[in-house]
Amino acid sequence: MPKTPHQDRRTTLTNGELRALDAHWRAANYLTAGQIYLLANPLLTEPLTGAHIKPRLLGHWGTSPGLNLVYTHLNRVIKARGLDALCVWGPGHGGPAVLANSWLEGSYSETYPDVTRDVEGMARLFGQFSFPGGVPSHIAPQTPGSIHEGGELGYSLAHAYGAALDHPDLLVACVIGDGEAETGPLAASWHANKFLDPVYDGAVLPILHLNGYKIANPAVLARLPEPELDELLKGYGHAPIHVTGDDPVQIHRALAEAFDRSLDRIALLQRTARQERGNERPHWPVIVLRTPKGWTGPAWVDGEPVAGTWRSHQVPLAGVREKPEHRRQLEAWLRSYRPEELFDAEGRPTADVLACIPEGARRLGATPYANGGLRTRELPLPPLDDFAVPADKPGVTLHEPTRVLGGFLAQIMRDTATRRDFRLVGPDETASNRLDAVFAASGKAWQAQTIQVDEHLDRHGRVMEVLSEHLCQGWLEGYLLTGRHGLFSCYEAFVHIVDSMVSQHIKWLKTSRELPWRAPVPSLNYLLTSHVWRQDHNGFSHQDPGFVDHVLNKSPEVVRVYLPPDANTLLSVTDHALRSRDYVNVIVAGKQPCFDWLSLDQARAHCARGAGIWDWAGTENGDGDPDVVLACAGDVPTQEVLAASDLLRRHLPELAVRVVNVVDMTRLLPREDHPHGMPDFEYDGLFTTDQPVIFAYHGYPWLIHRLAYRRTGHRNMHVRGYREMGTTTTPFDMVVRNDLDRYRLVMDVIDRVPGLGVRAAVVRQRMADARTRHHAWIREHGTDLPEVAEWTWAG
Amino acid sequence: MPKTPHQDRRTTLTNGELRALDAHWRAANYLTAGQIYLLANPLLTEPLTGAHIKPRLLGHWGTSPGLNLVYTHLNRVIKARGLDALCVWGPGHGGPAVLANSWLEGSYSETYPDVTRDVEGMARLFGQFSFPGGVPSHIAPQTPGSIHEGGELGYSLAHAYGAALDHPDLLVACVIGDGEAETGPLAASWHANKFLDPVYDGAVLPILHLNGYKIANPAVLARLPEPELDELLKGYGHAPIHVTGDDPVQIHRALAEAFDRSLDRIALLQRTARQERGNERPHWPVIVLRTPKGWTGPAWVDGEPVAGTWRSHQVPLAGVREKPEHRRQLEAWLRSYRPEELFDAEGRPTADVLACIPEGARRLGATPYANGGLRTRELPLPPLDDFAVPADKPGVTLHEPTRVLGGFLAQIMRDTATRRDFRLVGPDETASNRLDAVFAASGKAWQAQTIQVDEHLDRHGRVMEVLSEHLCQGWLEGYLLTGRHGLFSCYEAFVHIVDSMVSQHIKWLKTSRELPWRAPVPSLNYLLTSHVWRQDHNGFSHQDPGFVDHVLNKSPEVVRVYLPPDANTLLSVTDHALRSRDYVNVIVAGKQPCFDWLSLDQARAHCARGAGIWDWAGTENGDGDPDVVLACAGDVPTQEVLAASDLLRRHLPELAVRVVNVVDMTRLLPREDHPHGMPDFEYDGLFTTDQPVIFAYHGYPWLIHRLAYRRTGHRNMHVRGYREMGTTTTPFDMVVRNDLDRYRLVMDVIDRVPGLGVRAAVVRQRMADARTRHHAWIREHGTDLPEVAEWTWAG
Repeated sequence: MPKTPHQDRRTTLTNGELRALDAHWRAANYLTAGQIYLLANPLLTEPLTGAHIKPRLLGHWGTSPGLNLVYTHLNRVIKARGLDALCVWGPGHGGPAVLANSWLEGSYSETYPDVTRDVEGMARLFGQFSFPGGVPSHIAPQTPGSIHEGGELGYSLAHAYGAALDHPDLLVACVIGDGEAETGPLAASWHANKFLDPVYDGAVLPILHLNGYKIANPAVLARLPEPELDELLKGYGHAPIHVTGDDPVQIHRALAEAFDRSLDRIALLQRTARQERGNERPHWPVIVLRTPKGWTGPAWVDGEPVAGTWRSHQVPLAGVREKPEHRRQLEAWLRSYRPEELFDAEGRPTADVLACIPEGARRLGATPYANGGLRTRELPLPPLDDFAVPADKPGVTLHEPTRVLGGFLAQIMRDTATRRDFRLVGPDETASNRLDAVFAASGKAWQAQTIQVDEHLDRHGRVMEVLSEHLCQGWLEGYLLTGRHGLFSCYEAFVHIVDSMVSQHIKWLKTSRELPWRAPVPSLNYLLTSHVWRQDHNGFSHQDPGFVDHVLNKSPEVVRVYLPPDANTLLSVTDHALRSRDYVNVIVAGKQPCFDWLSLDQARAHCARGAGIWDWAGTENGDGDPDVVLACAGDVPTQEVLAASDLLRRHLPELAVRVVNVVDMTRLLPREDHPHGMPDFEYDGLFTTDQPVIFAYHGYPWLIHRLAYRRTGHRNMHVRGYREMGTTTTPFDMVVRNDLDRYRLVMDVIDRVPGLGVRAAVVRQRMADARTRHHAWIREHGTDLPEVAEWTWAG
Repeated sequence: MPKTPHQDRRTTLTNGELRALDAHWRAANYLTAGQIYLLANPLLTEPLTGAHIKPRLLGHWGTSPGLNLVYTHLNRVIKARGLDALCVWGPGHGGPAVLANSWLEGSYSETYPDVTRDVEGMARLFGQFSFPGGVPSHIAPQTPGSIHEGGELGYSLAHAYGAALDHPDLLVACVIGDGEAETGPLAASWHANKFLDPVYDGAVLPILHLNGYKIANPAVLARLPEPELDELLKGYGHAPIHVTGDDPVQIHRALAEAFDRSLDRIALLQRTARQERGNERPHWPVIVLRTPKGWTGPAWVDGEPVAGTWRSHQVPLAGVREKPEHRRQLEAWLRSYRPEELFDAEGRPTADVLACIPEGARRLGATPYANGGLRTRELPLPPLDDFAVPADKPGVTLHEPTRVLGGFLAQIMRDTATRRDFRLVGPDETASNRLDAVFAASGKAWQAQTIQVDEHLDRHGRVMEVLSEHLCQGWLEGYLLTGRHGLFSCYEAFVHIVDSMVSQHIKWLKTSRELPWRAPVPSLNYLLTSHVWRQDHNGFSHQDPGFVDHVLNKSPEVVRVYLPPDANTLLSVTDHALRSRDYVNVIVAGKQPCFDWLSLDQARAHCARGAGIWDWAGTENGDGDPDVVLACAGDVPTQEVLAASDLLRRHLPELAVRVVNVVDMTRLLPREDHPHGMPDFEYDGLFTTDQPVIFAYHGYPWLIHRLAYRRTGHRNMHVRGYREMGTTTTPFDMVVRNDLDRYRLVMDVIDRVPGLGVRAAVVRQRMADARTRHHAWIREHGTDLPEVAEWTWAG
């Protein structure tokens, strides 16, 4: 990647270079402080008065001088070496710093032409920051060059690795702050270097920026003695380079050298791997940068030390509008950057300030890698017919849906072998989730030691397995946001581990969709399997279908939820999900043998509708409303509803039963609440307005009420689902424990359809007896009743 | 703690000791395999047939021999040194191993008298394992001596630290498995040693058990060269001791020595700290135990290597019932432990097997530390009157509720200074959340370096701050489950980081409540603040009120949710939460200045009811139903509803308005769905059955529908709440963006109360104009309309 490697020689900045770097840094610092404080008088052409100060002082100063320093020095090496680079800014509360640099390099004005690179634009830059209707205080989708929301901490390094995968020419720098370094996801991410292929992936350069403090406390890593921190980073597999100090000249020199040494080492490691196909796991560099928090800001305020302490975390001088002394201090602080040397009379940055900035798309705020949709290519998707299972008659043959899907995914892996823009991630579960067909097309990424007994490990593999849902999610987010495709397969219960991460990603997508300059990126696709109903081995701790509830709280323009009831429907929805952009698609599907209900054509039509009547499964004659609607969503509920319908046909043949299956959960929402929401006439056509509806749902039953409460027929709806009645037990016992079993559903029907008479009462008793028989049988045999285990749809 | 320190001398096991340790280990291995496979013939007194084999083979063998080894050797040192010890078993899928040991030591039969320590009991132990209606396959609350659910991985070490805090005489051993070691929470937990006080806390001894594999992959740490792993562990601040091998005799000798060296070192470090009050951060020992996965199990099955590979993760021989060859292998495997030497003819363990086991409550399965309720003392709670704010007139004075609460918590800290059974945890936010009064009573736990500028750091502090919600949660869980009290204060949005952890804790409590031998433990209390409506500094990434939705999906017997609307109600609900047992209490409250609505007495009465009519806030005259109900839950919605009621009184005085405030969200549920659920007559008495209800709710609006959908009046209910319309903006702009503002609420009333006539239409227009005025004002000034900012309740 480095076009002009500077290997193994010392970096000696000329005085001119040093002056220019410092000028850029000072300019960025000035613009940062300006954003926090100034409403007017941006160039300080007149003495500062209260009227120049913003009414609400918001933003985070403490981390910003360090971010400005890193941005400045990245500029230098990008320009000198002609790098394609991206930077992930972990301390994303330093929003004004990154905005300042983007404005300086011109990418801000190109993205937002009303914020020009002159005095008016500077005033606008200042005024809009953290101002209602303006720009957020943290790094966000609105920030040019960003793929990483500032806010929740912990994901920067995982995002950086995700961005670097399959981008052999890319350098991804990643600034990690003191606070973030204490989080679990970040701590796990250090080991991501065991999964980064020096041949086909780019490089990640972590910059651990220790300014000593979090919001109100010293940081753990900052208070380790340097040898102990060194051991830690070496233990993580890195080669640390330390830069420490508070003298700008010394730091400029040391940091310039640290960057050169790091990039030389990266170049060497990549060259070795790529030319000589060396097999040693590289020990990549990491820069440890220790500079004071709030550096160059006020040293003391109201008798308390501020620069170099946690007190500089947000707004160091809080009373600037009211207190003349604070205002005086602010003015001295701003003038200490000597803005008159940095900007001309029109507010344009001087040549010295601009000297270090690279050109065009190499600028960090202009790199297309950070606007991944620009680089996205359509995924080559093979015809589903090649993978579909025959299903001439419903409910006779069995297939494992995820295994069927595995064939389809394997073909995609094969078809992207050269392009390398598709990855599968998962926490050590690809085989357990029965997707192992993919291993015929790609092994599992692994750079660490291998031994003979290992299987499917491959230095160049594109299946990513690590026992950290956080890493899986972070990698995939970074991969998608830089324009590639992927799928995360996960145990349903444990995907809650990334609840908070997916919230942030949905927020990112929601905001991005509103920004015309951001090109749509491939969707984040989840395959949730090993689900709540089939934890025969594991029991209660593995039973939780609530991720769907979690994502459905989020922006409807982004969220899609699919519960395909069999193998062909799983193929169809996955195909759809992989074609889509800017969504989060949650697909819940089983890995255990499951009846095939629909042929591929039927599956396609059904999935396109998202919900529909399964005529063949009911007993209504098409003449007016049925007596009862049996609705289902999810593979296990669908089976139980079909079995219940079968029982009803045999025992109460005169009852007109309609079976409705829902694949796309958001279709139940009103049209005004979700783009997929059905109009009322369509909903009423499926569910009727006044007949009883017994709804068997895969997850927590009240979700259906939350989706459908505004429908006319809602008052007649009775939902069965998972109610935390879990343990290690058989599949049928699980549904019995949660009252989702076929017998209970038949009883529900009899309880709710009026006027059924004595025969129905007898049938109801028979169902209750079957449940009793189940309890006795399972206590004795530990297995399910033969009549249940052997049931097939009679048709 | 060590009563007989064996410092600095080599451990030399006698042949008798070695034989006894090995016998115990073999017995445990035998019983482990027996649980996975055998339905009958537990002592192998007859040749194995298919009829002796369980119909479903479930469980995890791979990790179990290692857990059995650790249990055996812990027995030895506990007995030899007279230790009080607890063990946290991270690879909790090794359930049969821990059950086997508990049965051997007799604690199992004491806990479950029907599972006797003889051949019948052994048969029952085998038969019940992973059998429907039996015991779970993972370690669970049912497992004697356990405080840590096996299932989701990552929390063992944090639990271990939580258990050790304020237990100076306790040793907490913690086995960490290969897979778990890759997770983020576990990676972060290594640094917990910077928070463990060698004087007042006990010791944690991590045992990193590397058997090389996860479910289907090698593990990252297992494939580090030993020097690199050593650096990592030293970087974590530990002194590593390595034990590696597959020869039992050698491993017994090496592990015995490793335990002795570790415990000697712990004793030395504690003595130094406690006697000499040394100030150096201790470098605690860690044992790295490398033994083969599935050790002593079948080496090859069907031509594939199994022992020592991932293939031994679950059931190494899967076809035992059908395949004679597998059955033959199983029999050979079981007989390889020489059961006839381990158990007498009645199935009782022999003296050799029992030789290493400690007595009574020192047994790991009998320690009261793992049944924390037995050790819990009532928390001394000071009178609330000392902290309450005067509120003679509602809505005139302002207080920051969490700051008021801080005084109460500080007093609890003071009153537990000697007992040391109360802790406050939070991710670097105690001061930011305005609870900093506690620092006058206790500093923040911190063992790392301090410098002069630091504040409130204290080696013996009981406020725990680390920027990891996972660690906070894990510490508190471990602390509570061993019988102490605490509170977790967290930014509302970021508590989603522990969604999955709290699910597991709720499952734990739900199951524990069903076990008569488990004494109730103090509740897990959350104070969620810095909430969605007041992210003026931070914006969209910090806005998420969905944790309440998440916990309300879980077991109703465990979950409680409170939204106190002011300072005195916050005091009242927190007092209640801190007195409770076996619950998860979620309290959502603001830290920003908030009107005082209720006096302490009123607050107590209101919180006891959980929901009630605020007569003084409405305009109904008590004569029949009101024209409209304005309901609210949460501080900001309450303020907007009161302001709306004020507007209605002024503009439409003839309208009979009722104001209902809900503090306890679960009161809205039907009685049959939650113990706090209101009976219908009470609900109808508050909300009416047929008048319009405008409900202003703190979080996602559909939650209210999900809680109330079965109520008669539900069809008249219109809910306003947060709908992901977030950004960095002013408080009032946030409510306007989400249609929760006073003007919108008045418009909602006018839209829904029939027959209001022309005057109402004029008022409606005036409200719409006010919203327009707001938009213009904020664009111009960046602040809220003066009429909003200066509003108080006129009364």
